[in-house]
Amino acid sequence: MNPRRAVVAGIDLGGTNTVFGLIDGAGRCHATGRLATDSHQELSVYLQRLAAAIRHCLADRPDLRLQGIGIGAPNGNYTRGTIEHPPNLHWKGIVPFVAEFKKHVPLPMALTNDANAAALGEMRFGAARDLTDFLVITLGTGLGSGIVSHGRLVYGATGFAGELGHTIAVRNGRRCGCGRRGCLETYASATGLRRTFLELLSRTDTASDLRAAAPADITAAAIARAARDGDAVAIRAFRRTGEILGRQLADSVAHTSPAAIFLLGGLAQAGELIFAPTRRSLAKNLLPVFQGTVDIRPSGLPPESAAILGAAALIWEELDR
Amino acid sequence: MNPRRAVVAGIDLGGTNTVFGLIDGAGRCHATGRLATDSHQELSVYLQRLAAAIRHCLADRPDLRLQGIGIGAPNGNYTRGTIEHPPNLHWKGIVPFVAEFKKHVPLPMALTNDANAAALGEMRFGAARDLTDFLVITLGTGLGSGIVSHGRLVYGATGFAGELGHTIAVRNGRRCGCGRRGCLETYASATGLRRTFLELLSRTDTASDLRAAAPADITAAAIARAARDGDAVAIRAFRRTGEILGRQLADSVAHTSPAAIFLLGGLAQAGELIFAPTRRSLAKNLLPVFQGTVDIRPSGLPPESAAILGAAALIWEELDR
Repeated sequence: MNPRRAVVAGIDLGGTNTVFGLIDGAGRCHATGRLATDSHQELSVYLQRLAAAIRHCLADRPDLRLQGIGIGAPNGNYTRGTIEHPPNLHWKGIVPFVAEFKKHVPLPMALTNDANAAALGEMRFGAARDLTDFLVITLGTGLGSGIVSHGRLVYGATGFAGELGHTIAVRNGRRCGCGRRGCLETYASATGLRRTFLELLSRTDTASDLRAAAPADITAAAIARAARDGDAVAIRAFRRTGEILGRQLADSVAHTSPAAIFLLGGLAQAGELIFAPTRRSLAKNLLPVFQGTVDIRPSGLPPESAAILGAAALIWEELDR
Repeated sequence: MNPRRAVVAGIDLGGTNTVFGLIDGAGRCHATGRLATDSHQELSVYLQRLAAAIRHCLADRPDLRLQGIGIGAPNGNYTRGTIEHPPNLHWKGIVPFVAEFKKHVPLPMALTNDANAAALGEMRFGAARDLTDFLVITLGTGLGSGIVSHGRLVYGATGFAGELGHTIAVRNGRRCGCGRRGCLETYASATGLRRTFLELLSRTDTASDLRAAAPADITAAAIARAARDGDAVAIRAFRRTGEILGRQLADSVAHTSPAAIFLLGGLAQAGELIFAPTRRSLAKNLLPVFQGTVDIRPSGLPPESAAILGAAALIWEELDR
């Protein structure tokens, strides 16, 4: 009989920083820690320090018992436990993250990409607790997505299912980092909003406060501020972004018929500026049989801890099975 | 201890005819029967006769023991056991098929649409026996689809998931029966092929044997025959159809990452005429991470019994749970 409280480590591996929390089965965070990601050229050194940071955290909390580790990482592959060709990390190629980290911490461990982790977090601790079929869309630099069907995350044959950011929104449209053209994430993301805003600036001479700004200062946050202040070009940029996102999501609904689509990530913080046009466009483009069956909703988790809660949910799900 | 062999009735409910088979757990068909669908204006009379036909079949085979009934029907809703707004049946609105039929045959019963049934048939008895993640596309008058993930059919929140025929292949494209424009099934289906062929005839003056035919005689089968005889317009029509299907399937792969996509139905009988351009186009449009991870394959079931095997698989799956 162990009187200590069972927790898992939920790790959010980002390009700049790695943040982790010790999370119990109810989603309470008992301790947190962090480590720079980008200063570690060597995976082995990084993993050693990450393990040490977690152990250090646990040493302060004898009331906790670590049961497992969940990791959300860009380009994370759940099936293989790898991070594959991450564009913003020092480690290149196929990084055998789970296999290597288990050498430092011999516990149950699972890894997936950040959007999948977000979906699991929403299902276990957030606004999708009563849902078995839903989508999570993360609108950050790119567009990530997690698909849940029958209460399980869809990983597909490769472990890479849920790449809605790379469905084609505009045939022969904008160039995408993936080498193709017209991918949804080149329109519906913080970067996409910025491209749309600059395009609108170049195509019209509508007044905008941001005309005086250096292009580098025209961030998604700056466009959101301008839109809230009534800037017509900024408002149009949000409207256009939501229009494209909503119509593309209509195709996603035709695939898995979710009861809800959660919009998360930096761009979702713009609130109704992005939610309203996305909702309108989804409703307009939906097949009749799906009308009224799917809502667009905000996350039920605090933005600052959503990622570590998602990573924790991933491994709690494994432990509960 | 009952020495009789357990079977289920697999029912393929079509607009013109209803065909059923008594199918054991290994997919062997022990008896079949049929009933006209379209001569029955009244659902209750139809159900009474269908039940009588099944009982008649069983009376001849005292070695069989009926365990359950599976039904594949157009616009079938698995979750509700209903047929909803079927365009080609006499019965209108929301038809409570399972609830009504259970009054005649009080046995475990399940109903889904024909493409979903086909996917289950392929998984249990056909070419998807070793797969947990795949797609089935039925190319008939329209385009139906069934999505399998983690070994389970994706029904979604509504029971209507897998409507890939109504994802948008061409923005503002051809008018679709659903009231929208550019749906995949207006291009990739027997009807779509015919529309493409007539479009090509109208746009060019390339010689074609079918220029002399009455438009009503220009069926998908006639276009396939012409293509096999080297008709340049017919070959181009197939190529264009496969091109659009393949590029749209690339978006479906980005959703659920299937290991295989099975092409079934009348148009799939055209073989390489449709398979080759679809494969080429899928490979050309796939996100790099999915390259080489997904095949386009023919069904592993005989076309004439695929539908009843699919309906049987649906109820066998329920009974096995």
